[in-house]
Amino acid sequence: MFKDWEKAEKGTRLPLETVLDALKYNADGLVPAIAQQHDTGEVLMMAWMNRASIEETLETGQVCYWSRSRQTYWRKGESSGHRQRLKSLKIDCDGDTLLLQVDQQGPACHTNRRDCFYFEADSNGVTVTADPVK
Amino acid sequence: MFKDWEKAEKGTRLPLETVLDALKYNADGLVPAIAQQHDTGEVLMMAWMNRASIEETLETGQVCYWSRSRQTYWRKGESSGHRQRLKSLKIDCDGDTLLLQVDQQGPACHTNRRDCFYFEADSNGVTVTADPVK
Repeated sequence: MFKDWEKAEKGTRLPLETVLDALKYNADGLVPAIAQQHDTGEVLMMAWMNRASIEETLETGQVCYWSRSRQTYWRKGESSGHRQRLKSLKIDCDGDTLLLQVDQQGPACHTNRRDCFYFEADSNGVTVTADPVK
Repeated sequence: MFKDWEKAEKGTRLPLETVLDALKYNADGLVPAIAQQHDTGEVLMMAWMNRASIEETLETGQVCYWSRSRQTYWRKGESSGHRQRLKSLKIDCDGDTLLLQVDQQGPACHTNRRDCFYFEADSNGVTVTADPVK
């Protein structure tokens, strides 16, 4: 289906059910979802969603992932308060990745850093680029 | 290992080999890699890398993925010219996702759109947000 939609012009509207059916979920029924702060462009984290968590996120406007480690829905910020309010949910050209533009309340990372990408590699080594927040 | 490094302070330096050994590759030996335009913050695409493609990318400064569909190295732009020059390669808190900040030459998407995320979903449907470039 995504192949058929490659030439679709800007403004073309597709039925949500059809598109969600056509997503290329992995063997566990999941697709990766990148979370980006909508106004600054910071990439905050990546997590996974199943079809029901996508639908819930679109309906409620609060981001809900699927936790692979806990094997349950993960309503981001439910216990920590570090919620992600959805600004837009985008799907890529071949339907196997999501981009969530969000408004992140507080830190996105479980280490209390703003984002999860605090190891920077170069050809000689890796540097920690942010302190954990106490 | 990544658990041990959570409390590492800013500026801590880690050996590249140790960190690459500790990455949480999936069953196919791959980790997802998000590509972001370094100066504008646009999220361009997501693809996959294995250990050797990470090492090559760090050494050459030109992004090399692993193509799951073709089961071979994918030196982005080798045939199209739409190369990605590496600006920084970041690893997330639990070592299972990469963030590549790049300078993208031309369109990142195989449909000739600048980025791959041109389907925007809401609770009523999905809208195509960019025209393919001829």
